[in-house]
Amino acid sequence: MTASTTQLSLDLVGVFVFALSGGLAAVRARLDLFGVAVVASVTALGGGVLRDTLLAENPPYSLRHWPYLIVPVVASAVVFRWHPQVSRARKLVLVLDGAGLGLFTVTATQKSLEAGLGWAGATMVGVITGIGGGVLRDVLLRQIPVVLQREIYAVAALIGAGLVCLGHSISQLHAPWLIGTALVVFAVRMLALRRHWSAPTPRNLEDQAGG
Amino acid sequence: MTASTTQLSLDLVGVFVFALSGGLAAVRARLDLFGVAVVASVTALGGGVLRDTLLAENPPYSLRHWPYLIVPVVASAVVFRWHPQVSRARKLVLVLDGAGLGLFTVTATQKSLEAGLGWAGATMVGVITGIGGGVLRDVLLRQIPVVLQREIYAVAALIGAGLVCLGHSISQLHAPWLIGTALVVFAVRMLALRRHWSAPTPRNLEDQAGG
Amino acid sequence: MTASTTQLSLDLVGVFVFALSGGLAAVRARLDLFGVAVVASVTALGGGVLRDTLLAENPPYSLRHWPYLIVPVVASAVVFRWHPQVSRARKLVLVLDGAGLGLFTVTATQKSLEAGLGWAGATMVGVITGIGGGVLRDVLLRQIPVVLQREIYAVAALIGAGLVCLGHSISQLHAPWLIGTALVVFAVRMLALRRHWSAPTPRNLEDQAGG
Repeated sequence: MTASTTQLSLDLVGVFVFALSGGLAAVRARLDLFGVAVVASVTALGGGVLRDTLLAENPPYSLRHWPYLIVPVVASAVVFRWHPQVSRARKLVLVLDGAGLGLFTVTATQKSLEAGLGWAGATMVGVITGIGGGVLRDVLLRQIPVVLQREIYAVAALIGAGLVCLGHSISQLHAPWLIGTALVVFAVRMLALRRHWSAPTPRNLEDQAGG
Repeated sequence: MTASTTQLSLDLVGVFVFALSGGLAAVRARLDLFGVAVVASVTALGGGVLRDTLLAENPPYSLRHWPYLIVPVVASAVVFRWHPQVSRARKLVLVLDGAGLGLFTVTATQKSLEAGLGWAGATMVGVITGIGGGVLRDVLLRQIPVVLQREIYAVAALIGAGLVCLGHSISQLHAPWLIGTALVVFAVRMLALRRHWSAPTPRNLEDQAGG
Repeated sequence: MTASTTQLSLDLVGVFVFALSGGLAAVRARLDLFGVAVVASVTALGGGVLRDTLLAENPPYSLRHWPYLIVPVVASAVVFRWHPQVSRARKLVLVLDGAGLGLFTVTATQKSLEAGLGWAGATMVGVITGIGGGVLRDVLLRQIPVVLQREIYAVAALIGAGLVCLGHSISQLHAPWLIGTALVVFAVRMLALRRHWSAPTPRNLEDQAGG
């Protein structure tokens, strides 16, 4: 496989897994078949669509390449038919989801730097791309986005985006640096899951009613 | 009337009816006059704004043509003043809403094909345009989007978008095909309403608590 | 200070205060440190990002100028550490927020007119920019947007956008007019807060259950 075929394949695996996570959440919210497909597609493609919109590269890449649109449909069918099994394979889904997070964040940050954004803007686009699909999924399903509440998820994306910017500023933004960064994001996410790491929450909330 | 005047008039009728549906939902959520106007405008224009953003045709068409901005304001005033009557005319609103769905989906899919998208991307933009306003309405009012939960609504849009792509691929994308497709969307939606058709929902959910 | 330095400073004060309001809401919803930073950033920058997207000026201005991205992070840290004190300074936050509303609405409406939009489109972009961040904040925190429910907030933005369009049409869109308009928005908002003004809500709702 050439480099770009590898990249495409990895990208589609990420899309598939993000779609599985979106589809599972939609099944639990008792949406119908079409609702499951919509939520799965939004979860899988939403981050990339936000990225391309922010970088003024619309129509979004995914809308111009049909495999990106077929993969979420396939994932929806799988979830719809075999959701008890997919649920039971939750650990595998979480592992693949962590890999997707690393991949999407790294490529989006790199794309943003190439589009001329500085480190702060590129980091923001990278994080938005990594967590955007999951945030849209939760908004559609009327949840406060889980990535904003607990677990080191967005922080892993933030670290990845920062490392890509660092690589860029020291002119090391080649394949090894990018792959290494994606692996770091993946490792941080896996460690956070295994050790139940959480970002700190504010103190002194006793005197305030929750929203 | 010329073809484009007809198109504009139909389009504005669709905008008016979508605004009525958004305004009614906002009144039921007890929003104030301004909130009703915002939700009505978002419902009526949201799908088209998403379409133009995805197709990189911003500023959105509706923002460049003032009748599109006045019509939702008029609809809001009507709903605000006469919402019990509008509620009672619910069937008429649903019928006109189905017509709007057909019109918006067909024109958006056609526009996407003209912008160079393939059938998969054009179908997605068509469906997003058709259902986008209603999804935004429900998100603003803190509901899980009703079009994702029950009734054949988005499926009608999907069929319409697919038929436009088919017409394009066999070089038949002229007025009769477009009008026929819009009528098919309308007919599917009306039949679904009358016969209480629903898309299938997943089985084996007994062991999982709803979201 | 030059005019543009003044503008930038005022803009960043507005960003800071909007971020404080977003951060406080996120702390009350018990988000973690990262969630607080995300909600604060979205509240502070969301309106401007919507504006630049609608006006086809992406990448958004804020993503191309790092102070815009640092200020919400600083505001998040302040809220996270001292939220009881920030809560107690609620009146000050509301006053500064009103100033931000005036500033953001006026500059966005002006920018839209310069981009060639008519008065209706420019007014809409101005209002969207002024209230957009707060709407996104509430959607992320699973609230019906407060600006749609009570208090004269969006109406103040609407008046400001209208005055900018009026100034444009009589060729008076110079600094005094713009500053005066921002002050009018601020004054309307302050009066509404002090006198508990609200926009009217619909009557005859007794027979309908709330959404």
